[in-house]
Amino acid sequence: MTSKEQTSEGHQDFTLGVDVGGTKIAAGLVDAKGTILYQTRVPMPAREDAAAGFAALQAAIRAVFAAHPQSRDTLAGIGICAPGPLDPIRGIVLNPPNLPCWHNFPLASEVQRAFHVCAKVDNDANAAALAEAIWGAGVGFRNVFYATLGTGIGAGIIFDGRIYHGRTGSAAEGGHVSIDYNGPRCGCGKRGCIEALCSGPAIAQRARARLAESGMPSRLRELARTNLENLTTQDVAEAFHAGDALAKEVLEATVDLLTVWLGNMIDLLEPDVIIFGGGIAQVMSDFFPRIQRELPRWCINARCCEIPMLLAKYGPDTGIAGAAALCRQQQSSSAPSTVRTL
Amino acid sequence: MTSKEQTSEGHQDFTLGVDVGGTKIAAGLVDAKGTILYQTRVPMPAREDAAAGFAALQAAIRAVFAAHPQSRDTLAGIGICAPGPLDPIRGIVLNPPNLPCWHNFPLASEVQRAFHVCAKVDNDANAAALAEAIWGAGVGFRNVFYATLGTGIGAGIIFDGRIYHGRTGSAAEGGHVSIDYNGPRCGCGKRGCIEALCSGPAIAQRARARLAESGMPSRLRELARTNLENLTTQDVAEAFHAGDALAKEVLEATVDLLTVWLGNMIDLLEPDVIIFGGGIAQVMSDFFPRIQRELPRWCINARCCEIPMLLAKYGPDTGIAGAAALCRQQQSSSAPSTVRTL
Repeated sequence: MTSKEQTSEGHQDFTLGVDVGGTKIAAGLVDAKGTILYQTRVPMPAREDAAAGFAALQAAIRAVFAAHPQSRDTLAGIGICAPGPLDPIRGIVLNPPNLPCWHNFPLASEVQRAFHVCAKVDNDANAAALAEAIWGAGVGFRNVFYATLGTGIGAGIIFDGRIYHGRTGSAAEGGHVSIDYNGPRCGCGKRGCIEALCSGPAIAQRARARLAESGMPSRLRELARTNLENLTTQDVAEAFHAGDALAKEVLEATVDLLTVWLGNMIDLLEPDVIIFGGGIAQVMSDFFPRIQRELPRWCINARCCEIPMLLAKYGPDTGIAGAAALCRQQQSSSAPSTVRTL
Repeated sequence: MTSKEQTSEGHQDFTLGVDVGGTKIAAGLVDAKGTILYQTRVPMPAREDAAAGFAALQAAIRAVFAAHPQSRDTLAGIGICAPGPLDPIRGIVLNPPNLPCWHNFPLASEVQRAFHVCAKVDNDANAAALAEAIWGAGVGFRNVFYATLGTGIGAGIIFDGRIYHGRTGSAAEGGHVSIDYNGPRCGCGKRGCIEALCSGPAIAQRARARLAESGMPSRLRELARTNLENLTTQDVAEAFHAGDALAKEVLEATVDLLTVWLGNMIDLLEPDVIIFGGGIAQVMSDFFPRIQRELPRWCINARCCEIPMLLAKYGPDTGIAGAAALCRQQQSSSAPSTVRTL
C-alpha cells in the first residue's frame, strides 16, 4: 500500500504538538504511538504584540512541516499547550502573566484558519496528563490523576480518555487544594495550598529553615556556600542522594504533606492510577514506599490505598507530547451536554 | 392506548426506592418524574442474621406492590440505598457498623433474584446526589456536586447523569477531605476533615466551647438549661433565628470553614452546580451570601466562583427518591472501560 492510499483511507499518522512558553516555543512531530519523531525550538517574543507572537508560532509549525513534508497529508491536527489562564473549551488564551502578547487571543481558531487542520489548546498539566493517559504510564487505566511536581504543582484529571475540564475549563487545579487553611500564603492568594507546601521553592525554603534552626552538620551548608538563599531543590536532592540526614528529613517532611493531599485526592476522586511528572518527581519517587505506608492514615478506606503510583513516561518533552495528545483525545461520550429529566 | 400496550412498548413508569437504615426500612414508589407516590416503613432487625434482614427488606418491597399492584408491570427496577461501606459497582454490602446483619452481602443480586427486576445498590449520599441531578435542584446541570450536611458530611458527584464511583466505588468521600492536617481528629481517623469541623456535632461543640469561654449573654444558655452537654445544633439554629449573637458567630465560623472546603472542591472539580441537602442545609442556606462573598479568597480563579449554590429539593424523603433514582441512571458512555493506546 502506498502512502497516498493510506491518506485517502483517512489514516492520521501524525499530530503536531506545540509547547508555548514565556521565552520559547518547542514544536514537534508525534506519531500515533506517542513517539516524538522530530522537534525544533524558536524564541517566543512574548512581550511584543499578538501578531508577533503568532508569527513565531507559525514559524515553529512551518519548521516541523519543512523537516517532514509528508506529515502534512496525514496530520490529525495541531495541539498547543500554553500557560494559563486559558479557556480550553473555546481554545482562547485569556491573560497569562507569562504571555502578555496574547490577551483573550483565540489561539485554536487562528491556528485552524492558518493551517486548515483541527487545532486544540489546553494548559500544560492537562496536556501532560492526557499524554501519560494515552501513551505513557497511564495506558490501560480508565481514570488517571496526574500531578506535576516542580516550581509549581499542577494536576490533570483524565476520565475515560478525555480531559476533565469542569464548568469553565478551570477544573483540576489540584496544586491549589488547601490542606491547612491557617498555613503559609500561596502565590495564588489562598493559604496552605499544596503548592505552597511542597513545590520546589517550598522544599528549598524548608531546607533553609532547618539549616538555620538546627546545628546538624549537613552537606547542604557546603552546597549553599556562604549564602543559604542560594540553596536550591536540586541541592537538596543531591545532598539526599549523597546520604545527607538533614536533606532526607526535609524531603520526608515534604512527602508527608504530599501524602495528606494524596489522601484527599483519593477520598474524593479514587482514580485508577496516580502519575507523577515534573522536575522533582524523580527524587520524590524514592519516597513512594513511605507514601504507601502513611497513606492509610489519610484515606478513609484501606482498600482505596492500594492505588498504583507511577513516574511519568515523558520527561522534558512532555509539553510537545501533551500538546500532540490533545488531538488524540477520545471523542465526547454520547451523554447530552445537559442532563434532562427522564 | 391501554396500559398493557404501554408495557409491551417497554414504558417503565415506576421505580421502587428502598432506604435501608440501622433501625428501619423506608420503601416507596416513585414515578418517572421523581414524585413519590406512596411510601411505607418497616423495622429493620439489623442485629439479627442476614436472612432476617433480607426478609424485612422483602416485606417492605411487597407492601409497596400490595398498595400499587399495577406498578409491578411497568417497573424500571428496585434501587436500594444503604449505609456504607458498600461496593456499588458489584451491589455488595461490605461491613457497615450500622448493619451487622449484612456482612459481604450481595444485596443487588439477592433482590434481583427475588423480584426478577434490575436492582441497584449505592450509598445514601451518592443516591441523593443522583435524585437531585435528574429530578431535583440539579436538573439541567451537567456536572453536579451534592453535599449533605448533618450528623455527618457526605458528598456525591454526578457527571453526565451518572454517579462517579472511582476505582473501587469509594469516590466522593468529600466529607473526609482535610483542610487542616493539624486539626481535630475525625471519626474516620484523619485530622481536619470537613466532617470533623462542620457537621452538626461539630457545630454544637463549637457553641459549647464559645459559651464556656465567653461571658456573652446568649439564649443558648437557657436552651442548654444547666448542662451545656445538652446543647444541640437545633438549639443553635433556633437561637440564631431568634437573633442570638453568639449563635450567629458560631454558624459564621462554621460557614467560613465550609467555604475553604468549597473552594477546594471548585478548584478541583468545578462542577456546574453545588447542591446542599441534609438536616442542617436549611440553616446554612441563610449564609449563602456570606459564602459567595468569601469564596474568591479560596478559589484560584474569580470566574469559577460564580457557581450556582442551591438547596436540595428532596428533604426527609431523599433516601427513597435517591434509591429510586439509581434505576434511572444514564447508561454508561460509549467509552471503553480501559483506555487503550491509539
